[in-house]
Amino acid sequence: CTGAWAEPSVTVFGFLEAQVGRQTQNAPGTQLYDMGGSRLGFKGDEDLGGGLKASFYLEHRLNPDDGTVGGGATFWKGGSWVGLSSEGMGSVKLGRWWSQAFLKSQYASDPFGMGTLGEGSYPTVGCGPAFSGGCLGAFWVNNSVSYENSFGPVSFGAQYSVEAVGTGGKHPVNFGVSYGDGPLYLGAGYEASNDGSSDERWTSLAATYDFGAVKLYGGYGSGQDAAQVKRKNLIVGFTAPVGAGQVIGSYNTQDQGGVKVEQLLSLGYKYFLSKRTNVFAVVASDSKAPTGTNKSGYALGVFHSF
Amino acid sequence: CTGAWAEPSVTVFGFLEAQVGRQTQNAPGTQLYDMGGSRLGFKGDEDLGGGLKASFYLEHRLNPDDGTVGGGATFWKGGSWVGLSSEGMGSVKLGRWWSQAFLKSQYASDPFGMGTLGEGSYPTVGCGPAFSGGCLGAFWVNNSVSYENSFGPVSFGAQYSVEAVGTGGKHPVNFGVSYGDGPLYLGAGYEASNDGSSDERWTSLAATYDFGAVKLYGGYGSGQDAAQVKRKNLIVGFTAPVGAGQVIGSYNTQDQGGVKVEQLLSLGYKYFLSKRTNVFAVVASDSKAPTGTNKSGYALGVFHSF
Amino acid sequence: CTGAWAEPSVTVFGFLEAQVGRQTQNAPGTQLYDMGGSRLGFKGDEDLGGGLKASFYLEHRLNPDDGTVGGGATFWKGGSWVGLSSEGMGSVKLGRWWSQAFLKSQYASDPFGMGTLGEGSYPTVGCGPAFSGGCLGAFWVNNSVSYENSFGPVSFGAQYSVEAVGTGGKHPVNFGVSYGDGPLYLGAGYEASNDGSSDERWTSLAATYDFGAVKLYGGYGSGQDAAQVKRKNLIVGFTAPVGAGQVIGSYNTQDQGGVKVEQLLSLGYKYFLSKRTNVFAVVASDSKAPTGTNKSGYALGVFHSF
Repeated sequence: CTGAWAEPSVTVFGFLEAQVGRQTQNAPGTQLYDMGGSRLGFKGDEDLGGGLKASFYLEHRLNPDDGTVGGGATFWKGGSWVGLSSEGMGSVKLGRWWSQAFLKSQYASDPFGMGTLGEGSYPTVGCGPAFSGGCLGAFWVNNSVSYENSFGPVSFGAQYSVEAVGTGGKHPVNFGVSYGDGPLYLGAGYEASNDGSSDERWTSLAATYDFGAVKLYGGYGSGQDAAQVKRKNLIVGFTAPVGAGQVIGSYNTQDQGGVKVEQLLSLGYKYFLSKRTNVFAVVASDSKAPTGTNKSGYALGVFHSF
Repeated sequence: CTGAWAEPSVTVFGFLEAQVGRQTQNAPGTQLYDMGGSRLGFKGDEDLGGGLKASFYLEHRLNPDDGTVGGGATFWKGGSWVGLSSEGMGSVKLGRWWSQAFLKSQYASDPFGMGTLGEGSYPTVGCGPAFSGGCLGAFWVNNSVSYENSFGPVSFGAQYSVEAVGTGGKHPVNFGVSYGDGPLYLGAGYEASNDGSSDERWTSLAATYDFGAVKLYGGYGSGQDAAQVKRKNLIVGFTAPVGAGQVIGSYNTQDQGGVKVEQLLSLGYKYFLSKRTNVFAVVASDSKAPTGTNKSGYALGVFHSF
Repeated sequence: CTGAWAEPSVTVFGFLEAQVGRQTQNAPGTQLYDMGGSRLGFKGDEDLGGGLKASFYLEHRLNPDDGTVGGGATFWKGGSWVGLSSEGMGSVKLGRWWSQAFLKSQYASDPFGMGTLGEGSYPTVGCGPAFSGGCLGAFWVNNSVSYENSFGPVSFGAQYSVEAVGTGGKHPVNFGVSYGDGPLYLGAGYEASNDGSSDERWTSLAATYDFGAVKLYGGYGSGQDAAQVKRKNLIVGFTAPVGAGQVIGSYNTQDQGGVKVEQLLSLGYKYFLSKRTNVFAVVASDSKAPTGTNKSGYALGVFHSF
């Protein structure tokens, strides 16, 4: 590299996912769409000596089908933070970042990895009317301080939103913990928020076990949303290596106040062209969602990370 | 490079064009403006072995005069796609990308290369009221699958929009083919769209020949817009190396329903400071455009690509 | 570097600042906020030979607390230009860029460097109703041509907005000059604008002297805004190395029509983890601002540049 690269610590990263298919969730007819959250990011670390590091992270989301921004006004939807970390002492991040509860439990329980038409449904757990980051079951918390650390196989994260939400509201908070050792992964998360209108709480668990011929996934979530409606989320699934690819299946249900509003069965195959690139085929059927809003359909697509 | 560059396959590219001049097209008075479509892009390839490649492309457009986004909500106006390509088998791109018809014919026929005040006028061919990508004479098609390949001097592209446009509309489609051998270039394009209100069609041809002392350009387009009005577009031009630069001239007319709505004569000089950078002077006169909307004027500018 | 880096002249740069604290300026309660103007930029130079260079610059501003864009529609708020420069002859920039008057004087007089809660208040000098870049005391001028050069210790900049502002308005213009030799820095700036409603003028001076144990800062500005109200701005401050860090203090007042509308006393400490990274603590008290709008408060934060 020449001296022109004055800042060699910046990494440009991301991925694009595009699938062609039908999904009655959005609109009838064949569409080109992205469900993985195509992204472009910039990140970097600086070694401060003595095991200390400074880091930053900016992740933009976009829609490759029409070139629009994926997060509306939240251009850096995927995260925007600056932080410090130390070997042993863990890391602190200030800004917008993933809910630690979600990362350690719900995200880990989806064999589709929050991508393709087959992915589990998470963003429906519910937010209070004054919500502005920190929503239960949502993915990111604004204005947050995150602390993450690992002790051998145990990984822990806590997140606190510095700003209270809504008039009379409280500071959203969440915790996540995981245990990963060889083939076994266990994760748990707890989130609490109150925007002044009501208490929201969400507890979630995840477990995966890799038998080699098949990896099993299970996840369960339970809580109450801002309307004081009880919510439950269940997912079971698997991935199994077949040839140069992987068969993936999942069964995902959601309950609201005892009524099943989602019953999603997804089956897919990913063919890995490389670690960074795969093509996939997915079918999904949601037999409980209201007409016009379910996720049933099929798609063929390509995923390429960089 | 250090290991900090974890993703060395990402290239940051683009160019900025800025000209100072007067154009009665937009507003009276001297202005600073960009007509080349200043841009910042990110792209990359991954070699998958066996002649196969995965690629992505993201191109943002911006206005350097005031730092605003060039494409409004379409932040990645210049293209956003992920694709696969193979030596011999060609490439497939999914997302937002150039109309193949436009690329192979109209774009090739403009000696100003769609930049500076002297550029030909293309975006006026007309779109149906329900248009959302796939407009005739427009540059990009949303939700598209593009196939491109080359056989010796012949290059071919076909593009299909996966989503139909408008109620009762059809899928926009376009084709482009070119032949380039030594000094000769021939290109042709065909586009068809129907947004449910009417059929739109556009056929275009381009030819250039480089005699060395001068390169001649010619282009012709004919079709009907969404209002069923017949449209025609004609351009002839030249570039001629003079000193370390190039004299450029073009004559461009547009007809709508038999009425000439543009008669643009442009003359310019580009002085190449390097392959990547030039300064230019351009004068243009449009004697048929309605008062206040024509493109007449003059400008001095700089172009720098990276 | 591999050939994949086809454009090695692009540098990705920027910084993120995040502070946790209270400021009654914006809203009561603890907040996570950024006052330094967190940014991500892209810039590059091309050596054209003979001492000539082509350059471009794009600087985006963002809010790390919630991932939103810092400049609204002006995505490239921090600057967007293309230019040429020559050893000896200076540089010319076309686009959006810093007011040379501001850079050379007001910016130089703030010991907090326009960052953290302790920073001086500049953006309040006033703009005419038809303002669109070129505001007095604002930071950037749109549609501008900037000329910058240095002669030994003397640095000079002039900026002219190519577009007049408002009906009957004039072209915003500003000048800045500085002298920097060893411990001494002197700067002066003059700005003039007229948007058709009234004349605006602003003159500013800055001086700093580095005694080693302490560096002193002083700045003074005087002019009249678009409403023909007389304005004055005064700042005195210091930085002093203490341990691996720096104590910073400033006293900043603003007068409008003879009434003191700001009287800000700021004290802070920056601990430098590296040249690129620091953590800081700041307290500030504004005893004259109208209730609910003052800048009083305290904050702890981190700054990381890349």
